[in-house]
Amino acid sequence: MNRRHFLGTLALSALAEPAAPRVNGTRLREHLEALSVFGRPPGGSFADGVSRVAYSDADVAGRRYVMGLMETAGLQPRIDAAGNISARRSGSDSTLPPVLFGSHIDSVPSGGNFDGDLGSLAAIEVVQTLNEAGLATGRPLEVVVWCNEEGFAYNNGIYGSRAAAGHLDPGELELVWNGVKKADAIRKVGGDPDRIEEARRKPGSFHCYLELHIEQGGTLDQAGIPIGVVEGIVAIDRYDVEIRGFANHAGTTPMPQRRDALLAASYLTVAVNEIVRREPGRQVGTVGQLSVSPNAPNVVPGLVRLTVELRDLSSAKIAKLAEQIRARAGQIASETQTEIEMRPAAHHSEALATPAVQESIEAAAARLGLQTRRLPSGAGHDAQMMATLGPMGMIFIPSVDGISHAPKEFSRWEDCARGADVLLETVLAWAG
Amino acid sequence: MNRRHFLGTLALSALAEPAAPRVNGTRLREHLEALSVFGRPPGGSFADGVSRVAYSDADVAGRRYVMGLMETAGLQPRIDAAGNISARRSGSDSTLPPVLFGSHIDSVPSGGNFDGDLGSLAAIEVVQTLNEAGLATGRPLEVVVWCNEEGFAYNNGIYGSRAAAGHLDPGELELVWNGVKKADAIRKVGGDPDRIEEARRKPGSFHCYLELHIEQGGTLDQAGIPIGVVEGIVAIDRYDVEIRGFANHAGTTPMPQRRDALLAASYLTVAVNEIVRREPGRQVGTVGQLSVSPNAPNVVPGLVRLTVELRDLSSAKIAKLAEQIRARAGQIASETQTEIEMRPAAHHSEALATPAVQESIEAAAARLGLQTRRLPSGAGHDAQMMATLGPMGMIFIPSVDGISHAPKEFSRWEDCARGADVLLETVLAWAG
Repeated sequence: MNRRHFLGTLALSALAEPAAPRVNGTRLREHLEALSVFGRPPGGSFADGVSRVAYSDADVAGRRYVMGLMETAGLQPRIDAAGNISARRSGSDSTLPPVLFGSHIDSVPSGGNFDGDLGSLAAIEVVQTLNEAGLATGRPLEVVVWCNEEGFAYNNGIYGSRAAAGHLDPGELELVWNGVKKADAIRKVGGDPDRIEEARRKPGSFHCYLELHIEQGGTLDQAGIPIGVVEGIVAIDRYDVEIRGFANHAGTTPMPQRRDALLAASYLTVAVNEIVRREPGRQVGTVGQLSVSPNAPNVVPGLVRLTVELRDLSSAKIAKLAEQIRARAGQIASETQTEIEMRPAAHHSEALATPAVQESIEAAAARLGLQTRRLPSGAGHDAQMMATLGPMGMIFIPSVDGISHAPKEFSRWEDCARGADVLLETVLAWAG
Repeated sequence: MNRRHFLGTLALSALAEPAAPRVNGTRLREHLEALSVFGRPPGGSFADGVSRVAYSDADVAGRRYVMGLMETAGLQPRIDAAGNISARRSGSDSTLPPVLFGSHIDSVPSGGNFDGDLGSLAAIEVVQTLNEAGLATGRPLEVVVWCNEEGFAYNNGIYGSRAAAGHLDPGELELVWNGVKKADAIRKVGGDPDRIEEARRKPGSFHCYLELHIEQGGTLDQAGIPIGVVEGIVAIDRYDVEIRGFANHAGTTPMPQRRDALLAASYLTVAVNEIVRREPGRQVGTVGQLSVSPNAPNVVPGLVRLTVELRDLSSAKIAKLAEQIRARAGQIASETQTEIEMRPAAHHSEALATPAVQESIEAAAARLGLQTRRLPSGAGHDAQMMATLGPMGMIFIPSVDGISHAPKEFSRWEDCARGADVLLETVLAWAG
């Protein structure tokens, strides 16, 4: 961190509102750098990212490091039956539901050092800052580090918070993942799959849930805005599409006689883009996976399989877009003499952030003199599970060039400290 | 074969021109069925196709069977240094260059029982028919079964006739193919790679080259025309295209910020189709191979590699089409914020059939009462190599539903016999 810039920010925000303490940005950076060692590629540096996949040895070691930080911050961490780590700081009325805040520390393979880590370590930093300032809150505070947010694929991840929200799938603990049965993996991190129900939190058991996270997209970075106020986590619909044409000799099959599955797939990919973009809004639509058969330069493609993924804050909107895509697929099939089958493969509902929490994040940022922008979260987060139990809000900070889930993932240190300060301010606003 | 239909055809053609003898269609069918055993899938039947890949044990066995057929037809087969099998029938003036005709008997993996086999066995049938009719010709006749027509990929196939035409690539004999060095493979079928130059035929060393083959496309079958007169073998240009975008999170990357390589590839695939189809003519253009990276439903594709293949009787025409495609690729790259690189990967020149040979095939078919259509050959053939040495012509018969290079490849037995009769008539016309 450039200390002068950070102090400059402090001085600026101090002008706006002299009251609350500020986090120690240098310490936050040191903790992020220290955590990055667990899962770092051999011989690499911080800039080489991290592979701290949930339940791996690196994950276990990172969790141990984080629990040590909690203890240094005067907290007594416990591991629940699902493997989530949490710790309470008493309030003046400890019978009240706490303000809950945190994130996760597991990563995707070859991921970055900010996704999850920032929100987890900033949560601990908030408590330590309050301790150092001798500030008590009316409500208790609870710091949480969720277990296995990333997973590898749909329904594998956002596991610890899903267990806490009571949304585990039947039989999920029996699934084998990375060569290990999930139940055994949970035991490895100190959980107890036989008593998984005990990890469940009741609706109303927290006053509100807050999560600081990197944006993972480029909106804030491009706009030069330091704080994003998340409107909600988008709904996701995924469709598996199979296009059946007829594989034939590319030299001997005249153009009008072809039933080219890849040509049909290309029209469909263009159509997905056009249909998604022609409506106003921030919805996205992606054909990310596509395979061709037989896939030879001199054979007209006979079969293509592809995925269509749609995301928006409104499930209804992406359902409408899917219907338009389906209608267009019907026309394309007829024009290309192929068959196109579009089958729903996954659905995740939207999780809207509570308006009052969004407003209090904006107010906190304003007190710190920081510009904000409201935006949806296109990625999934533990917060979406907490939204099913009580008020929820998320704070985003810019991701440089919008890069995430890659070693190049980076957020400027001053933005990390700003985000942690907004978290601190918002926690105080809700904890009284 | 439906014997009554075949006899009907004989009677009809006899009305048109009573002179020449007719092939024995039943025997031709029996020979095709007998040859199909070599390389037949275990437990399969004729309809299950054949895997008689060049130089395989099945190929060696099939070649032995064919040499036996030649001997039965009074011929003395020899194997040249390149592994090609050929045999001469004397003419009344044996100093004249012979009429050369034949095809190949190797197949693609999981191929059919007509591609190559028909032209090879029909050539032997022509000689046997002439022998049985006691008909002598002025010029000698030479039956040839070329070695390794199919290959597996560009430059691997059309090998035996390429050696005969003196067009082998430098170092080609050292290449390892199917786990065996080509030189050793050639030894396996009785060739002599150390004396490969001896397989070369001189320009003018044959009077004309004729090849009967299945169309492998659906033009004749759809039109209900029994005989195709090949105008030439198309030129082929293949381009390897690399499209570089930027892989990013499909949830967090807004549509306008994407650099989606698959979207660009889709526009390009559509453009190839439109550019090729908007001009009159029988040119074809194919995007047959395409791979996506990282190829995950929730990641905007960062890299796509694809092939563009163009074929037409005119090299100039496909070069012009390629330029149009290249220009459109530049626009697409700019519109999608990607980079598109289009690199020439293979070029095969066209081989035009000699007009006088085309006319004599038409005249022969007319004498037999058979309707003809001129058409290009979109597939490569040994004939394209012989065209570099002397007059060349090809006779096509219909492929049912245009299917080839697959077990379902089929040509009606009466069409096989018709094709062999046209070959016989044309041989006689050129042999005097």
